[in-house]
Amino acid sequence: MSSQHVPNGSTVAELGEFGLIRAVTENRRQPESTLLGPGDDAAVVAAADSRVVASTDVLVQGVHFRLDWSTPQQVGRKAVAVNLADIAAMGAVPTAVLVGLACPADTPADLVRGLTDGMWEEAAGAGAGVVGGDMVQADQLVVSITALGDLRGRAAITRSGARPGDVVAVCGRLGWAAAGLAVLHRGFRSPVSVANAQRFPEPVYAAGPAAAKAGATAMIDVSDGLLADLGHIAEASGVGIDVRTELLDVHPRLVEVGTALGADPLHWVLTGGEDHALAATFPPFADLPEGWRRIGAVTMPDSGVTVDGAAYAGESGWQHWLS
Amino acid sequence: MSSQHVPNGSTVAELGEFGLIRAVTENRRQPESTLLGPGDDAAVVAAADSRVVASTDVLVQGVHFRLDWSTPQQVGRKAVAVNLADIAAMGAVPTAVLVGLACPADTPADLVRGLTDGMWEEAAGAGAGVVGGDMVQADQLVVSITALGDLRGRAAITRSGARPGDVVAVCGRLGWAAAGLAVLHRGFRSPVSVANAQRFPEPVYAAGPAAAKAGATAMIDVSDGLLADLGHIAEASGVGIDVRTELLDVHPRLVEVGTALGADPLHWVLTGGEDHALAATFPPFADLPEGWRRIGAVTMPDSGVTVDGAAYAGESGWQHWLS
Repeated sequence: MSSQHVPNGSTVAELGEFGLIRAVTENRRQPESTLLGPGDDAAVVAAADSRVVASTDVLVQGVHFRLDWSTPQQVGRKAVAVNLADIAAMGAVPTAVLVGLACPADTPADLVRGLTDGMWEEAAGAGAGVVGGDMVQADQLVVSITALGDLRGRAAITRSGARPGDVVAVCGRLGWAAAGLAVLHRGFRSPVSVANAQRFPEPVYAAGPAAAKAGATAMIDVSDGLLADLGHIAEASGVGIDVRTELLDVHPRLVEVGTALGADPLHWVLTGGEDHALAATFPPFADLPEGWRRIGAVTMPDSGVTVDGAAYAGESGWQHWLS
Repeated sequence: MSSQHVPNGSTVAELGEFGLIRAVTENRRQPESTLLGPGDDAAVVAAADSRVVASTDVLVQGVHFRLDWSTPQQVGRKAVAVNLADIAAMGAVPTAVLVGLACPADTPADLVRGLTDGMWEEAAGAGAGVVGGDMVQADQLVVSITALGDLRGRAAITRSGARPGDVVAVCGRLGWAAAGLAVLHRGFRSPVSVANAQRFPEPVYAAGPAAAKAGATAMIDVSDGLLADLGHIAEASGVGIDVRTELLDVHPRLVEVGTALGADPLHWVLTGGEDHALAATFPPFADLPEGWRRIGAVTMPDSGVTVDGAAYAGESGWQHWLS
C-alpha cells in the first residue's frame, strides 16, 4: 500500500501538482468497481444497481484535526472514515473516494504522502478505491472527501423510518473519541487506545449493510454524539427515543480515564461525537445483526430524546460553528 | 430558484450549521435523477447505466476567485461549472453536485446564500441537482465540489484515444477568461463580457455527450490552457498534436482588449485557462457536432504539441503551485 518515494524535504510547490498526484497515485491497487481511476478529467465507478450513494465531509486543520496530536496518516484515515461511515449509515457498501486537498505551497510533500497513505489504507480496508481528486494551494490544510457507495439493490435506510415500538441499537464504540479528546487536551498521550480513538475512528462499515438486511427502519452515523444523532432520527421520523443507560456499554477503560480526569464517562458515551458508530432502529422482534446491541426504544411521537425516561441535563452533543 | 430568506446581517456562526443548511436547501427543485436529496447521511442519485462519472475540484478564495472581483453568486456558478465541465469532457451528462464549504465563522450568511444560489443556478442549467454537502469552519473560504454524471450507456471518452490523422476540434470559448484576468488585474471592470468570462465560465455541457456520440476518440476540458491541455491528450495518447492558428477564432473583442492592454490575444487563446471549452479528437472523416470547430490535427507519435508546425515560444499554460 505504500506510495512512491518522493525526494526528501520537498514541498508540494517544488514537486508540482502533477508530480504530487503521480507520487500519491502510482502503484495503488484499485478495486473492481473502479472502472477508470485517477488521471483523466473524471473517474468512472461501477454503480451496479443503477443508483449511487454519495456524501461529502470537509476536515480542517485546527478544527477537525491537529497535526501535533495526529500523524498525517491518521488524519488521512479519519478523513476517509468519517465519509465512509455516512455511506454505511445508508446501508450501502463503500465503492470509491474522491479527495479534494487544499494546503500551503510550503507543505512538505511527505505530509501529503502520509495523508494519502492513510486515505488509501482506510479506503482499501472498506473495499473502496481512491479514484480521483484535486490538489490546490490555500493558507490552511483543508481535506474534502466525497465517498460513493452501492446499495446492492436494497432501499436506502434514511433517518425517517423509525416507528414507535422499534428497538434502538448501536454498533461500534461510543464515548471513546470524546475521552481521547479530553486526554489529548490535558497534554497526555495515553492510554493510547483512547487517544487513538480521537485520532481516527474505526467504524464498522459492514454493520450498515447488515442492519439494512436485518430490516433496520432508520439509521444514522453517530458523528455529533449519540443523543444529538438520535435526535435527528427522532425529528425526521416524528417519534421519541428513550435510551436506557443500563444497556449502554461504558468500557472500563473509559471509567478509568474518567476517574483520572474527574469526568463522567457516561456523559462521553451519551454525547461524545467522532466515534462514528452506527445507530439504528429495528422492528420490535428483529434479530439484531452481529455486533449490534440494543440501547433503548422508539417511543411516542414528539416526545424527544430521553435518557431513562427523562430529559438529559447536559449538552447533548457537538455544537457546530461556536466561535 | 432563490433560496429562503435569512435574517439580515447574520453570520454563519449565528445561523448555525443546521439553520444554514436549511436556508440554502429549502424550496429547491431536484431533477428526477435525485432519488434522495440533502438532509440524510448521504444522497442517492440515479446511475441509469450502472456506472457513475465523478470528479472533484477545489476553489480557494484569493487563489481561484476574488470576492472583490466576483459576486458570491458568480463564484458559486464557477465552482460548479468547472466540475460539470469535467463530467462533460468524459462524454457524460451531469446528474448531481455535492458541496464542501469551509469558511470563517464570521462569514455573512448572505454570502453563503449567494454562493449556493449560484451553485443551484449552474447545476440546474445543466440538469443536475445539488444533492448534499458539508459546511465547516476554516480561516479561509474554500469550496470543494464533486460532480457526478451519467454516460448514457456510452464508453467514457478519455484522454488516451487520439490517433495520428485524427482531427482536433474545440467547442466553447478560448482566451476570454485570460483576457478577463488581464482586464481585472489592471483595475478595469469592462468590457463586461470579457471580465465576466473570468468571473465564471460558460461551458457548453451538451457538447461533451454530442462529441461522444459523434465518435470522439479523446476529449479534455480546457482548464489549464489549450496547448497545456492538448499536451495531456498528446501524452496520454502517445501522439503529437499540431494546432493551426488560421483555424483559431480570435474574437474581435479579444483583439480590442489586447490592443488596449498591449497584449497578444492569440497568446490568450493558445494558453489561457479557465474558459472550460472542450477539446477533442475525432476520426478524420467524422462529422463534427454543432458548435465544434476544427483547429488542427493529430500528428506522429512523440512530436509534442506544435503551433503551425513549430514549438510554441511562450509559456503553454497555467503553472500550478508556483508560489
